[in-house]
Amino acid sequence: MNRFSPLLAGAALLSTPLLVSAETAVAPAPNGIEFPADYRDWKVISVSHRTDHHSMRVILGNEIAIAAARRGETLPWPDGTILGKVVWKEGAEPDWAPAIAPQAFIHVEFMEKDSKKWAETGGWGYARWVGSDLKPYGNDTNFALECVGCHTPVKGRDWVFTTPATFPPLPAGH
Amino acid sequence: MNRFSPLLAGAALLSTPLLVSAETAVAPAPNGIEFPADYRDWKVISVSHRTDHHSMRVILGNEIAIAAARRGETLPWPDGTILGKVVWKEGAEPDWAPAIAPQAFIHVEFMEKDSKKWAETGGWGYARWVGSDLKPYGNDTNFALECVGCHTPVKGRDWVFTTPATFPPLPAGH
Repeated sequence: MNRFSPLLAGAALLSTPLLVSAETAVAPAPNGIEFPADYRDWKVISVSHRTDHHSMRVILGNEIAIAAARRGETLPWPDGTILGKVVWKEGAEPDWAPAIAPQAFIHVEFMEKDSKKWAETGGWGYARWVGSDLKPYGNDTNFALECVGCHTPVKGRDWVFTTPATFPPLPAGH
Repeated sequence: MNRFSPLLAGAALLSTPLLVSAETAVAPAPNGIEFPADYRDWKVISVSHRTDHHSMRVILGNEIAIAAARRGETLPWPDGTILGKVVWKEGAEPDWAPAIAPQAFIHVEFMEKDSKKWAETGGWGYARWVGSDLKPYGNDTNFALECVGCHTPVKGRDWVFTTPATFPPLPAGH
């Protein structure tokens, strides 16, 4: 076989973008928010255990969010903030039952702050992707009303449930 | 006053390292492990809620750990892995009581894998820093025996309690 076959070379050139596409293409949310493909590389804001929902969560932030959290300036969060929440079913750790840890992935959801663009929903744009195939949540833009409804108890906290956790050492002056 | 006074210049030169030192100097663990000053920038391996210890945790990894977790190759974890666990007291979220979230920081602890260097403690070197002033845990190197004792139930999991959580999309072939 000719190692330099133009046909094979063409196939090789095509295969790379197709593979990338198959691995990363996730449909946007109904309001147009794109899936942040690098979210799992984001830094930690906090964690939580919803005992009522039987789920474990990690709350991540993009760089603007992390910088704001570390400065303690999150009321309000600055425009450009994106907060991500990864949600898994709860379950006992296999060798230490009183430790509750993530089991199957449920969904990942995001809030992005843009006071003007998202003025109708409190300055935040919402998006959620469900299941390991990351199906966008909601059939149309009305899905965000459900998000706003659930977040209404924390309207006075700029619509955010999460309090950033402490990661010592603290900056000088804190 | 002479802006170019050698005395003032000397003071200025000294002041920068002194400030840096005050912000970042953390004493090493009794076994010589240095505090990983950038741990809060590490990526997430998983989270947990120790209902017996009334604490919330996030488990972070250095780049070698994250790469191993994403490849699913953690039995054993490769040499060079460092796992970090940040531990806070548990408490209810202020506006959603069934959600348990971090309160005060308790400690941060690390396991670093070096099969040769740490052969006497199962291939892992242990370290913990306690409280917001990050005081090293233990009076001498015997402190690691306590770590090994607690981790013995997971000897068959390369001494690690944590199962890496799933962050879709999964790589092709998984």
